[in-house]
Order: sequence, then structure tokens, then C-alpha cells
Amino acid sequence: MARTQRGSDISPDGVKATAFDVFGTVVDWRRSIIEELRAFGQAKGISIKWDAFVHDWKSCYRPGMHAVRTGKLPWTNVAGIHRRKLDALLVEYGIHGLSEAEKILLNRAWHRCHPRPDVVAGLTRLKKTYMLSTLSNGDVACLVTMAKGGGLPWDCILCAEVFRHYKPDPEVLRGAIELLALEPQEIMMVAAHNHDLRAARSHGMRTAFVPRSSGYGPGQTSDLKPEDDWDVVVGDFRELAAVMGT
Amino acid sequence: MARTQRGSDISPDGVKATAFDVFGTVVDWRRSIIEELRAFGQAKGISIKWDAFVHDWKSCYRPGMHAVRTGKLPWTNVAGIHRRKLDALLVEYGIHGLSEAEKILLNRAWHRCHPRPDVVAGLTRLKKTYMLSTLSNGDVACLVTMAKGGGLPWDCILCAEVFRHYKPDPEVLRGAIELLALEPQEIMMVAAHNHDLRAARSHGMRTAFVPRSSGYGPGQTSDLKPEDDWDVVVGDFRELAAVMGT
Repeated sequence: MARTQRGSDISPDGVKATAFDVFGTVVDWRRSIIEELRAFGQAKGISIKWDAFVHDWKSCYRPGMHAVRTGKLPWTNVAGIHRRKLDALLVEYGIHGLSEAEKILLNRAWHRCHPRPDVVAGLTRLKKTYMLSTLSNGDVACLVTMAKGGGLPWDCILCAEVFRHYKPDPEVLRGAIELLALEPQEIMMVAAHNHDLRAARSHGMRTAFVPRSSGYGPGQTSDLKPEDDWDVVVGDFRELAAVMGT
Repeated sequence: MARTQRGSDISPDGVKATAFDVFGTVVDWRRSIIEELRAFGQAKGISIKWDAFVHDWKSCYRPGMHAVRTGKLPWTNVAGIHRRKLDALLVEYGIHGLSEAEKILLNRAWHRCHPRPDVVAGLTRLKKTYMLSTLSNGDVACLVTMAKGGGLPWDCILCAEVFRHYKPDPEVLRGAIELLALEPQEIMMVAAHNHDLRAARSHGMRTAFVPRSSGYGPGQTSDLKPEDDWDVVVGDFRELAAVMGT
């Protein structure tokens, strides 16, 4: 199999489906969420450092998944993990008196993340040839709503919630391969995170790395470069579409 | 809530998502499968009554689901149920010497069912306003491949295989409501089968009946009429799109 590096026009043979990490890779969640919350704050006259609030909010993600993985929490989707943390942060930041409807609105800011500027063009080209699936730790409702809002032309929404396990648990990778009814090497994982690609490769899937330097906020130091000889390394989704022959 | 009968322009209030039965309602599976097999037979010089073969093939569906439901079979998707029966029928009809690739091709005839003529136009209109999901006993790979082949603009593929239960098991209906993160009455089940709508209503979902007189083959006697006061009764998907205000 050809290993393709940036700028090459050789795509891996035999790929039929592409499975995308979403948060970080497809959408710049940090910028979207900060904008959403800042606008909410302005409308409500709440003046806090929303970038710090979002940083603190996101900090619940890995511990929340760990609690599920180790059985300390029963299965809880990311919306549930976010909501628990949101309730705690509202108290911590002294934000009182929000209605339940407002809290639901805030928690669904994740549904309204915007795709990065190269995404829709690249996916639209890829869709002609490949089956496009998400393979995200997000929840179904979030991914579907985000797709409708942002024009993301997924053929299929696969995510942690479908398998009741979080990436990189093998249940998610094996589960996706089973549901797509393809050989592992016929599926290419696309991610801005080396750890997603390590998991995919360990199950025999192909790998495409699309570094996103703003994914972890200011001062990002990891995932700026490929940490293994991934099958494809490209600058953005337009380049991915070209490398994949679409 | 307004109960709408055929020809009315009052759609149920507050519906956000539509969940479609697929085999029978969206695609005329019988005609598609007979055509596929007949073409295969002509190419291979196999001359049998393919409509009888397809009738016999489909007859495995309810017993197969029953075997899963009662635990006689471990979870098996419809592709697996079909494949077991296909292997038996090839022997029964005296069709010998097919390669494994040919058997896979035949079993995937279900992936290539064609949408009924009103479907793409209706769904395309509905998609502007509503989240469109499948809620089928088919498997993910079949539904995704069929959608790509037939231009079905689903936002989300929900089906028995995701829940490892077959309709009308409550795990499927409750599971769909949970994954869509909506109230039951915000989801409308669309089906040509009264039994699908009974199950949906029993979980609080809205109901739309679209009778398809050719769904059960020649001599169909059931599901020609609504057997309850379903929220919407329409002649086809274009009429559904109009009644739903799109």
C-alpha cells in the first residue's frame, strides 16, 4: 500500500469509506462555543471571561469519559457529561437565575459548532466516491443538528453514543467496522489527533492526518505533526479530497 | 393536536424529526430484488421463477426476527438472516457453483433497492424543515448504500442493528427517541404499515400512514387502509411534504 505524504497524489488503494473525528478535526469547537457563550452573556448582561469558562467546561471531557470507562458513571453521553459540568460552573462563576430552557440552550451550544472553512467543500467532493461517516465521541443529536446547521453531507452518523463506549475503546472501532460491513482497510479514519489514528490503525483501518493548529486553543503544543507514518497527511479537507482522487 | 386526514393541510404541531420505515414504505423492495435476481440469472444462464425465489427468500424475515427476539439466535442483522436463507434456497432451487463473491453480491441486492418515484422529491422538501431519519429493520450498511445509490437525503441512519433489537421491540422506539434527544411527540413515524405506527404511537410518537398497495406483492390485502386515526394519512411522500408545510 502506498504511504502518502503531504503533496503526494497517491491515495491508498481500496478505501471505500471515510470516518471522521469531528470536534477539532471538522469543527473549531473552541471558537464556536466561546462565541455562542459570549453572545449569550451580552444578551443577558453577564460579564465573565468566557474563554476561561469554556476552558473549564471542556476540562470535564476526559475525566467524564474515564468515569464511564471505569464504571464509576453508568453510560452517559457527552451531552450528559457537559451538563453536569455546566451546572457546577454556573455556580462557580456566580451565574444565577438561568431558566432550565436557558441551560438547555447553553448545553446545546455544541450542536451549533461551525465547520472549518475547508470542510464542506472537501466533504462534498469526497462524498461522490466515498461513504462519509462521523466517528466522534459526540452524541447523535449533536452531530445531526450540527450537520444540518453547517451543511455537512454525512452519509452516516456513527459515534460513541451508538456503541455506548468512547473512543479509543475497541468497541467503537470494531463496532464501526461491523456496522459499515467493510474490511478494516477499506475504512480510512480522518483526524487531527494522532491518538485517533493510532486506535484506527490498531484495528487495521487506514489513517489520514489533518493537523489543526487551533484545536487545543492558544499555545497548542501537541498534534501539530504526524507522530507515525500515517497513510495520508494533508493540510486540509480540500487537499484530502484531491489526494483521494475526487 | 390536529388529526389530519388525507387532503388536509394541517400538520401536527411541534414535529421536529421524521422517522421512516424503509422496506415497503420508501423502496419497493420486491420489484427491485426480483429485477436484480432476474438480471443475475440471465447473465449466468440460470432459468428459475425468480418471483417465487424472492417470495421464499423474504419468508425468512419474520421467523428470523422471532428467533433473535426469543434468544434462539444471538443478535443477527437482516443481512445475516437473509444470507442463511439464501444459502438454503440456492440448494433448494438447484443453483450450484456460485462463488462466495457471487453470493455476497446476491445478498447485497437489498442494498440496491430503488426508491419509489415520489420519495426523493418528498424527502428533499421535508429535509429543509425536519430531521430525516430511517427507522428500519434493515442494517446500517444496507441503508447507507441504498441511500447513496438512490439519492435518499437522510440526516441519520437509525435501525434495528444500532439497537440490536428489531421493531416493534421497545428498545428500538425508545432508543430512537433517546438518540434524537427529542420528546416522543416531536418525532413522526412514517410507514406503510399500520403495525409500525401502532408501535410508534404506543411510545408517544406522531404517526403518518402512506399506504403502498404493492408492498406485499400481488394480492395484497392488508395495510391498504389506515387501521387507526393516524395523525396524518397521505397518498405519497410529495403529499406528505405538502401536509407538513414544506
